Amino acid sequence: MSEHPFYEETLSSKSIFSGRMIDLQVDTVRLPDGRTATREIVRHPGAVAVLALLDGGRRMLVVEQYRKPLEKTQVEIPAGKLEAGEDPLAAAARELEEETGYRAKSLELLHTFSTSPGFADEIIHLYIADQLEEGTVRLDDEEFLTSEAISLDEAWEYIRDGRIGDAKTLLAVYAWQQRLAAEARLP
Amino acid sequence: MSEHPFYEETLSSKSIFSGRMIDLQVDTVRLPDGRTATREIVRHPGAVAVLALLDGGRRMLVVEQYRKPLEKTQVEIPAGKLEAGEDPLAAAARELEEETGYRAKSLELLHTFSTSPGFADEIIHLYIADQLEEGTVRLDDEEFLTSEAISLDEAWEYIRDGRIGDAKTLLAVYAWQQRLAAEARLP
Repeated sequence: MSEHPFYEETLSSKSIFSGRMIDLQVDTVRLPDGRTATREIVRHPGAVAVLALLDGGRRMLVVEQYRKPLEKTQVEIPAGKLEAGEDPLAAAARELEEETGYRAKSLELLHTFSTSPGFADEIIHLYIADQLEEGTVRLDDEEFLTSEAISLDEAWEYIRDGRIGDAKTLLAVYAWQQRLAAEARLP
Repeated sequence: MSEHPFYEETLSSKSIFSGRMIDLQVDTVRLPDGRTATREIVRHPGAVAVLALLDGGRRMLVVEQYRKPLEKTQVEIPAGKLEAGEDPLAAAARELEEETGYRAKSLELLHTFSTSPGFADEIIHLYIADQLEEGTVRLDDEEFLTSEAISLDEAWEYIRDGRIGDAKTLLAVYAWQQRLAAEARLP
């Protein structure tokens, strides 16, 4: 595979909105066949999320909060957007402690992925932390949430009943299950 | 857990943009503590994606396309947005055949998840299909992509080298691996 098959050259870019969390632009691009098209693009600063494990990997920290775009409460792994110029690793440690009160002795990058590559540039850096110590919950202004630690069985139950229903948390649960299965196979 | 802890009542909603793929609105909400805040919300029609398996589950169909928001080519499972009023199951069958030329004898819903619950209402319906027959590739206008079938080892290699790097495809690879592992444990 070549590096950029079907490359779309930007012919012009129009800023539509500049907000607190996201910006929106509409680009006019040249398609591979020479025609032009528009692309609606949401710009996002990027985010971090943490698969934070307690009890030797038997429980995972989650937070429950109201998600206005979905008009419902959701249970997700701790996460938050990057602040300007912030290192993702530092952001992950910060968000974990702010939201759950746990401090990670070490964080390991598990995956970096885009959430909606068709219309947004948001990238999530997903970390795993399995050695935690007690710190201090400090929620952001305008942030309302509670945290709890759930077992893998509870996580699958939450997925079935819809309390867990976002991509990063689903991904974290699968990665957690795979990790436990790999550990179980060790002598 | 109650149904809507931290509910945010909408006080007003302002439409910022109405596009071909997404709309943008800014809502003013009442926070649980009585203060007000704004919420930037991208409206999306929803999407479907398919974990389509060939060769008795040993290979997965992927498509390669240029993703303008990321300014790079990505390898993803076949996917596309819902058309107005379209049933997700029918959309999944349509997108799979349009993009890869394979027709699914049956599709099973694996997960329904949100991609970016902090700023977008996009929901992806992820299906699994493991009995495929040859159909006809019919790309949408303005759609440029190629498809291939890769093994699980190749999928993990693509994840490591960044060719695969979006949430739905990562999730599909984990689900595929878990399925193969469960089958291997069967007598």
